[in-house]
Amino acid sequence: MPTDTKMKVHNFSAGPCILPQEVFQKAADAVLDFEGSGLSILEISHRSKPFEAVMLKSRELVKELLGAPAHYQTVFLGGGASMGFHLVPQNYMKPGGKGAYVNTGEWSTRAIKEAKLAGGAEVVASSEDKNFSYIPKGFTIPSDADYFHFTSNNTIFGTQFKQFPESPVPMICDMSSDIFSRPVNVKDFALIYAGAQKNMGPAGATMYLFDPATLGKTGKKLSPMMDLANHAAKDSMYNTPPVFPIYVIMLTLEWMKRIGGIAEIAKRNAAKAELMYGTIDRLPLFNGTTAKEDRSDMNPTFVLNDAALEPAFDAMWKEAGINGIRGHRSVGGYRASMYNALPLESVKALTEVMEEFAKKNG
Amino acid sequence: MPTDTKMKVHNFSAGPCILPQEVFQKAADAVLDFEGSGLSILEISHRSKPFEAVMLKSRELVKELLGAPAHYQTVFLGGGASMGFHLVPQNYMKPGGKGAYVNTGEWSTRAIKEAKLAGGAEVVASSEDKNFSYIPKGFTIPSDADYFHFTSNNTIFGTQFKQFPESPVPMICDMSSDIFSRPVNVKDFALIYAGAQKNMGPAGATMYLFDPATLGKTGKKLSPMMDLANHAAKDSMYNTPPVFPIYVIMLTLEWMKRIGGIAEIAKRNAAKAELMYGTIDRLPLFNGTTAKEDRSDMNPTFVLNDAALEPAFDAMWKEAGINGIRGHRSVGGYRASMYNALPLESVKALTEVMEEFAKKNG
Repeated sequence: MPTDTKMKVHNFSAGPCILPQEVFQKAADAVLDFEGSGLSILEISHRSKPFEAVMLKSRELVKELLGAPAHYQTVFLGGGASMGFHLVPQNYMKPGGKGAYVNTGEWSTRAIKEAKLAGGAEVVASSEDKNFSYIPKGFTIPSDADYFHFTSNNTIFGTQFKQFPESPVPMICDMSSDIFSRPVNVKDFALIYAGAQKNMGPAGATMYLFDPATLGKTGKKLSPMMDLANHAAKDSMYNTPPVFPIYVIMLTLEWMKRIGGIAEIAKRNAAKAELMYGTIDRLPLFNGTTAKEDRSDMNPTFVLNDAALEPAFDAMWKEAGINGIRGHRSVGGYRASMYNALPLESVKALTEVMEEFAKKNG
Repeated sequence: MPTDTKMKVHNFSAGPCILPQEVFQKAADAVLDFEGSGLSILEISHRSKPFEAVMLKSRELVKELLGAPAHYQTVFLGGGASMGFHLVPQNYMKPGGKGAYVNTGEWSTRAIKEAKLAGGAEVVASSEDKNFSYIPKGFTIPSDADYFHFTSNNTIFGTQFKQFPESPVPMICDMSSDIFSRPVNVKDFALIYAGAQKNMGPAGATMYLFDPATLGKTGKKLSPMMDLANHAAKDSMYNTPPVFPIYVIMLTLEWMKRIGGIAEIAKRNAAKAELMYGTIDRLPLFNGTTAKEDRSDMNPTFVLNDAALEPAFDAMWKEAGINGIRGHRSVGGYRASMYNALPLESVKALTEVMEEFAKKNG
């Protein structure tokens, strides 16, 4: 068991993924003794004062870091963003109505499937024609839709909305893979949701940040578990919440705040992306797989022009302590996920391997 | 930070609750370094081989410990047993059909509410007339119901089914608060589900154990997130599962197996219950609050006959390092939750305080 907080592995895992090393240390401490109580964070009541404070702080830090309007509300629920795909039409689609969707890949496709099952989905734009290698632009959002939904960043294909759409209807965004990575005008969104396990914490909790004024408009009677307004009214404790994941979220948000908030995070992410994409573009051995203007700062994807070189390249980056850069099976090649907590030094380690490999095989 | 595994606090919390001390130690180790990988359990991919092994082992141990028929399936989902209340009618209620329910308190009431929202609930028996202080008996389950649902143990009121009903329709049980505490004939149940945070692990995962032959009979088209058969077909990885809670479940199930399985656990629980209820009954100062034949081995509830003595009693048990025995607000008095991992020594500590208090005030 390592007792220091020095990184042993450069973890480019696509999610769950790296969190700050100090968060791991504090989380491990709390599993043994939560805030000096003599109790593990795993055995305390969610109704205890110390955990109520954790929940409140986590909810408040989300709003503070994102600069959300005061009346917006935050809840943390189990089930992942896939549960979010299901909750969106439950909370926003009127009987006989429809949601408008942009399809930018796997996660959008799943969200669209849920809307179709719930009543109706209109796909206003899609990049499926080119294996989701770009972000559609210039589409029209119908004003008779109940809401407009998009996925801000696609982890599998490595694309990202660089500019957010403007919508005549309530705008909803799945920001699972780039929440807290850059500034967002929260007031433009009715609902932002995000699975924790990329930029916010471990797997097991999903964050919903919403304007409560946009809820309760469908006339439907919802199950209390499906009803975002109910969860907010119960301070995100309608039922037992995922205690430990939420505690680790709080630690991660505290870390973000301490290092300078989203302004500092965005600066770091830009530096990592510049180094990574610069290396891909400079070395003729490698090629990016997405449209340049839509490249994700979170998940750069690339291929070796000569696939026969892959085994030699794989051996070299594994030797350098690099983990998790094989691409998703639907794209192939490589994906270097660079979430908020991934240090620049890890990107340096990877790009140095790429340079060295190019020298040997160039 | 304590470095040994000695108990510092007698934790009678009603849930989340005590787990074996060695589980806390192993869980903390894995937060720093999971199985010598150099990575935290919080940052590994759920698609990595080591976590796939954790998931498989957790699912298999559930069946092994409970002696479930080989064709039964296990999945772990987020959302708590409250999500289970919602999933039951989704998976088992036909359009125009109904579920039959016994109402033994808060959790049954919430389950019934979900069934009503989904179409229909017939309450075949209820103990609401006496503030849920007993378990209804001799009721008839209608053979035209789509399923029959009950809650095996009520944590708030401290009652427990000592004998399971026989049902002419698929029998479904919420065993959140007494799963793995005693032998169960799994084959009598279409579905058993349980939030992890009492006898199985930390908050954040719910276990579903079911006969797959009982699913897919409603003719309804379900959301993939609501569909137990879909989750089973995807090996409980349709979407990112709550990785860390499932890991801690595995550790807890391994502990159960090592100490002798459910036979040994049931023996320990019986000894704890005998000591606790014996003390309540022997001391005229205290009174149990439930029908004797329906007393829960998990959550003994009792009151002081003279409520004016409560502050003095509270001071005494707190001084003895006892935590979490104030009763639920809807019952008052005391509740000493004695889940699987609570050692007999904790019950001895509490009953000694009760004896001493009775001597001083008897």
